[in-house]
Amino acid sequence: MADTPAIEEYIRKLKEGSLKLYALEQHLPPGDAIRVRRAYIAGLTGSSLMKLGEFTISVDRVVKRNCENMIGAVQVPVGVAGPLIVKGEYAKGEYYLPLATTEGALVASVNRGCSAISRAGGAEVRIFRDAMTRAPVFAANDIVHAKEIIDWVNGHQEEIRSRAEGTTKHGRYLGASTSVAGTSVYVRLEFDTKDAMGMNMVTIASAEVADLIAAETGARLISLSGNLCTDKKPAAVNVVRGRGKTVAAGVELSDDLVREVFKTDAGTLAEVNVRKNLVGSARAGALGFNAQAANVVAAIFIACGQDPAHVVEGSTAITTVDPVPGGVYVAVTLPSLPVGTVGGGTGIDTQLECLGMLGVAGGGVPPGAHAKAFAEIVASGVLAGELSLLGALGAQHLARAHTRLGRG
Amino acid sequence: MADTPAIEEYIRKLKEGSLKLYALEQHLPPGDAIRVRRAYIAGLTGSSLMKLGEFTISVDRVVKRNCENMIGAVQVPVGVAGPLIVKGEYAKGEYYLPLATTEGALVASVNRGCSAISRAGGAEVRIFRDAMTRAPVFAANDIVHAKEIIDWVNGHQEEIRSRAEGTTKHGRYLGASTSVAGTSVYVRLEFDTKDAMGMNMVTIASAEVADLIAAETGARLISLSGNLCTDKKPAAVNVVRGRGKTVAAGVELSDDLVREVFKTDAGTLAEVNVRKNLVGSARAGALGFNAQAANVVAAIFIACGQDPAHVVEGSTAITTVDPVPGGVYVAVTLPSLPVGTVGGGTGIDTQLECLGMLGVAGGGVPPGAHAKAFAEIVASGVLAGELSLLGALGAQHLARAHTRLGRG
Amino acid sequence: MADTPAIEEYIRKLKEGSLKLYALEQHLPPGDAIRVRRAYIAGLTGSSLMKLGEFTISVDRVVKRNCENMIGAVQVPVGVAGPLIVKGEYAKGEYYLPLATTEGALVASVNRGCSAISRAGGAEVRIFRDAMTRAPVFAANDIVHAKEIIDWVNGHQEEIRSRAEGTTKHGRYLGASTSVAGTSVYVRLEFDTKDAMGMNMVTIASAEVADLIAAETGARLISLSGNLCTDKKPAAVNVVRGRGKTVAAGVELSDDLVREVFKTDAGTLAEVNVRKNLVGSARAGALGFNAQAANVVAAIFIACGQDPAHVVEGSTAITTVDPVPGGVYVAVTLPSLPVGTVGGGTGIDTQLECLGMLGVAGGGVPPGAHAKAFAEIVASGVLAGELSLLGALGAQHLARAHTRLGRG
Amino acid sequence: MADTPAIEEYIRKLKEGSLKLYALEQHLPPGDAIRVRRAYIAGLTGSSLMKLGEFTISVDRVVKRNCENMIGAVQVPVGVAGPLIVKGEYAKGEYYLPLATTEGALVASVNRGCSAISRAGGAEVRIFRDAMTRAPVFAANDIVHAKEIIDWVNGHQEEIRSRAEGTTKHGRYLGASTSVAGTSVYVRLEFDTKDAMGMNMVTIASAEVADLIAAETGARLISLSGNLCTDKKPAAVNVVRGRGKTVAAGVELSDDLVREVFKTDAGTLAEVNVRKNLVGSARAGALGFNAQAANVVAAIFIACGQDPAHVVEGSTAITTVDPVPGGVYVAVTLPSLPVGTVGGGTGIDTQLECLGMLGVAGGGVPPGAHAKAFAEIVASGVLAGELSLLGALGAQHLARAHTRLGRG
Repeated sequence: MADTPAIEEYIRKLKEGSLKLYALEQHLPPGDAIRVRRAYIAGLTGSSLMKLGEFTISVDRVVKRNCENMIGAVQVPVGVAGPLIVKGEYAKGEYYLPLATTEGALVASVNRGCSAISRAGGAEVRIFRDAMTRAPVFAANDIVHAKEIIDWVNGHQEEIRSRAEGTTKHGRYLGASTSVAGTSVYVRLEFDTKDAMGMNMVTIASAEVADLIAAETGARLISLSGNLCTDKKPAAVNVVRGRGKTVAAGVELSDDLVREVFKTDAGTLAEVNVRKNLVGSARAGALGFNAQAANVVAAIFIACGQDPAHVVEGSTAITTVDPVPGGVYVAVTLPSLPVGTVGGGTGIDTQLECLGMLGVAGGGVPPGAHAKAFAEIVASGVLAGELSLLGALGAQHLARAHTRLGRG
Repeated sequence: MADTPAIEEYIRKLKEGSLKLYALEQHLPPGDAIRVRRAYIAGLTGSSLMKLGEFTISVDRVVKRNCENMIGAVQVPVGVAGPLIVKGEYAKGEYYLPLATTEGALVASVNRGCSAISRAGGAEVRIFRDAMTRAPVFAANDIVHAKEIIDWVNGHQEEIRSRAEGTTKHGRYLGASTSVAGTSVYVRLEFDTKDAMGMNMVTIASAEVADLIAAETGARLISLSGNLCTDKKPAAVNVVRGRGKTVAAGVELSDDLVREVFKTDAGTLAEVNVRKNLVGSARAGALGFNAQAANVVAAIFIACGQDPAHVVEGSTAITTVDPVPGGVYVAVTLPSLPVGTVGGGTGIDTQLECLGMLGVAGGGVPPGAHAKAFAEIVASGVLAGELSLLGALGAQHLARAHTRLGRG
Repeated sequence: MADTPAIEEYIRKLKEGSLKLYALEQHLPPGDAIRVRRAYIAGLTGSSLMKLGEFTISVDRVVKRNCENMIGAVQVPVGVAGPLIVKGEYAKGEYYLPLATTEGALVASVNRGCSAISRAGGAEVRIFRDAMTRAPVFAANDIVHAKEIIDWVNGHQEEIRSRAEGTTKHGRYLGASTSVAGTSVYVRLEFDTKDAMGMNMVTIASAEVADLIAAETGARLISLSGNLCTDKKPAAVNVVRGRGKTVAAGVELSDDLVREVFKTDAGTLAEVNVRKNLVGSARAGALGFNAQAANVVAAIFIACGQDPAHVVEGSTAITTVDPVPGGVYVAVTLPSLPVGTVGGGTGIDTQLECLGMLGVAGGGVPPGAHAKAFAEIVASGVLAGELSLLGALGAQHLARAHTRLGRG
Repeated sequence: MADTPAIEEYIRKLKEGSLKLYALEQHLPPGDAIRVRRAYIAGLTGSSLMKLGEFTISVDRVVKRNCENMIGAVQVPVGVAGPLIVKGEYAKGEYYLPLATTEGALVASVNRGCSAISRAGGAEVRIFRDAMTRAPVFAANDIVHAKEIIDWVNGHQEEIRSRAEGTTKHGRYLGASTSVAGTSVYVRLEFDTKDAMGMNMVTIASAEVADLIAAETGARLISLSGNLCTDKKPAAVNVVRGRGKTVAAGVELSDDLVREVFKTDAGTLAEVNVRKNLVGSARAGALGFNAQAANVVAAIFIACGQDPAHVVEGSTAITTVDPVPGGVYVAVTLPSLPVGTVGGGTGIDTQLECLGMLGVAGGGVPPGAHAKAFAEIVASGVLAGELSLLGALGAQHLARAHTRLGRG
């Protein structure tokens, strides 16, 4: 915006209400619209938003696809942990994990875990299930009708598949599971969404399927999401059936390695895991049985343009430590890890670079290979974090690490 | 780093292993250390990390307190939703919410909710509980010993208080609750941490208390965190007892307002809420009974320098819609919302500006007032998100909004 | 035992340890063995067990199949509630429910619910799923091995079916679902067990399948039950996937009927249900969203020779109250109801009579019809209990009923 | 009823509807009323109920306090397991457990566990908490009002105590914890109910308190039970806060003893417990982490006149197996065990005898001592069941035991 007085003109219109804050992009190029909006908000709140304005990502696409009413960008520091040797079916080799975080000690902690894993030869990792879901809820007239609806769904899978797949170039329909609660009927639709995390794709396909079910059965569609999906709420259905990727990573550590890296011993790692991650979580009525899976998932997700609210799903991980001859086998299982390498925030410049660091930017060959490789890397990173925190707790280092590194 | 050849020299040392990646800050000023590290990683991964390097936050403090092994920063777009009228005990007035997000439609969705709330006169919001926790786990010799440990803890609260408060200038000890599972004894310590989210403060104080308990009872300290805290895992103990702030926000909407803003009616809002948020979540074995609380919590948390892994706690919100004469009363309750306005990522330039937009940057007067005001604002923002998504689902707009706005 | 001195002789041997308490049936007919054992225990404990000895059930089969070390029988009062009109696919007509209980007010409460349902034309009831499960747990060597085991299971369903069905005359193998947690691999096997509750049948078949899996994959069998079955522990897997019968019952009540029978109104029923059964249970971190399902399940189960520990599964019911024009539609959904009409305690004289009252004693035609009819009746009975308690709470009668009827 | 023609007369009146089934006791002595009712039901259902009529418990009190509409009694076989050495604070010495069950193998299984425990010197057992609860739910006008209600409750504990204790001779008010979910306010009231299980006592006291709260705050009482009690639904609130007795029992077993009694070794017991009871239950989304706690609780509860629906609470037990030098320490923790030795079904002849076998019939000295002793015995019995099943699974005996003993 060459002509700064113009800012004042737009701000005047915003103030008098003749222009809506969200409508600025209709009158100005994105960069200018953002600048006007930021100036307006700075004025209203009496807060300088100067630093928020110092972003360098290209915003043409961002304002259309990622963020409405944009006023700038926050900068989240990215640290690197690694090298981490990953031995998956899709991710193979050495990786450096980009971790976007403001929580002191986290990168150092993950880094220490990466070191232990790599010295032990790498993290074995496998994907056990891969399906994104959406579960519309319908109202039936009564219990008899509810049964008829479910029978119809079970008996017309090919029609449903055809209708669902008509909405998407990449997605594949995998099937449905149904639940009833009185007159509420839930149809949980599962899709292979390839390299996309896939919520959008699945929602659109589910809308078509929901219309079909409603038309054929007389069910009344209440909501495209009936919370049996379950999106971004901790839910056992995702633990039991999986959502996104179900993935597990493990590594065997010798007694010597445990002593050297973690200054504790294998038996202590096992005992800490049982009393904290298993029995402690049980006693807490928890759905997550791990030490800090959410920390690692959040840091990688923010760095790599994933949906950060999916940290909720990631937090349901289970960490296990098996005594084995001469050491321990430590593993982490993430029942529900929704990730993608296309769509969402993955295309924003800085996030794209972070995916690039891992060699998984954009669509994979064959389709889905990048998202799967990414899931394997995330799980291996979570394993690093678990190992490291279990080790630190075993050695009673936690408080001191915090003191030194200033986590608030 | 004026002298670019020097970069090559450091990179050479990193490659040959004579210099550790994390040790760069010992030899170079932070900015240069980051530049060398980024160049090294770019070389190893074959990925340009140019955009990651274009940050403008000041890093002297960041590399010490927020992020080790830093290579740059991701830029997360920040949109604004508002004005949102909040009627709390600490936050009073009109607010514009900074939402850091890459998920299209989210800001627009929250914005619509803010509009509805503000037109209805604002969100009533109250804090019901305020305590940050840490729960060390001890091993007892046997059941009899476990009982003795718990009796000692219950009988020596003043000693525990004195020891705990000796470690902190601001924090206040609130009490302990104990749990036993066989020989594992959990002591959940609660603190008022004022304007800090307080995990660090509480961990340090708990280390002292844990040493005291171990010394006095012969209990063997297994881990400073026994997962009954419960930090960053979905856990009923946080729903039942609270962790961080327990806060609820509500607003009454008239039938006319519901129709006008949401293109649906009050009865539909209530039905969607029951069948989706209550019955659907129940049928899913969920610990969260809401539509999209995690989305709003994540976006505000990332903007404002909070710990994003605490989205897990935020996702356990319960949304309720009561039919009232002439409309509905919609409310959201967050049993566990850990927030702070000092410490953690709150001091980073861009994040500080976002807190500034809300008038809650830094410590409040009296101490704790800023963190409480911030919690009230977050809860009101979550209410806006709930209202808006319930409305959209009621009007079956979800799929279309996604199509238009490109959420992936 | 004609010769009472003989009792003394056996007691002498028991006291001196030359005869084991459990071995009496090897020396004496069941009735005599029971008498001797009771006398011995009476002597040791100084408590007359005279009334325990006044049973009249025939014990030849009982001592072999139902109860070791028998000393007598407790008598549990049986009340009757009804008539209850049931409109199921298997149970059709008027029923009188036998309720074995010592909790005052329960029979009266269910009876009132039956009256309301019958006056409204009867309970609609449908079975949505029917499968008994057992889930052995195996140890894999590592994550890679875990994946191989699961792949083998998924790829060899016909072999598994053949091996499983080779152990049972009546049971049919329905399929398997698998879960992994680190190196622990769970294979949840599902069977149609016809008129038997089926735990025994399923355990035997699962032992064969477990041996097969272990032999073919090198998996190490840890336990025939890995708790993903899940038997007699509250578990979301049973809510999500079902165990035993998944069954729902519902009825529409007019405003007039609600007022007349329950002295409250339809709106109050709906509000009590939302605030208590839905929101209250959510806030409690519950897996059951009902008022008193366990009471009714327990009373019918004890009367009808079911396994009373399965009350746990029954307690996960969800009760819903939908406002409809002119009244409410009230429903209860039991995701997991394990029942049988053959095997277990169903053949004991008094229990057999209670099943006979319902017309479902013994095997049905076709096989499974009796167990399904019984499940439909139980669900309808639970609906009666829910209706009645919701009504009483609505009318604030609970405390007074307790005062009058003496529940302790 | 000397004059049998009279039966026909009453049955005629029942058939023509001039006499209600539940009103028979108003016209006839209990025994006769039961006989008429049974004959009437036998006629309607075409099922002989002869055996149901062969009860010998005295019914004068039963028909008033335990069971309405009585038609007879089921006879549940009672087996005995023991001796079991218990080393509690209230129960000390050798006990024989009365187990009312129809599930073959259960008594034998518990018996084997008792043998192991007793040979190891007995079960250490302690009660950690003791409080019966009731949680009325109120509707507030809005969030502000909700906060006022909770503030009032917290600020008027002495008034609440005084009102509550005015309703009961034995009960003592222990305190309240509050929860809010939107406009629903839950006040969980805790009482020491001495030797009574106490639900009745607590409900009556809570009704008074609820009236007080409503009168003082303008809160609208919705239901005397708001499901945060939580009664007979699996709920984390009971795990976290306890309900009834919180009790744990443990025993150390040497390697030799494990081998001798269970034909397996200590390491296997520990591994089975981790993979099944801890990790398996975690993966199942369970609230119970045990092998068969519900079986033992159900069998003792039915024998001893407890409320069998409270098996739900009992099923949330956690079983732990710690490796110790030369063996294992095995423990079971029951967070929520509601029991009583007066009231409910405890006074019925046969049930009273079972309590008598344990030396805990009727009220204790001091008040509460009998119920506490009983809780200690139940927990020790559950420990026996856990040990035995873990041992059997370890030795892969489960299927064979079932085959032999005919559990259906």
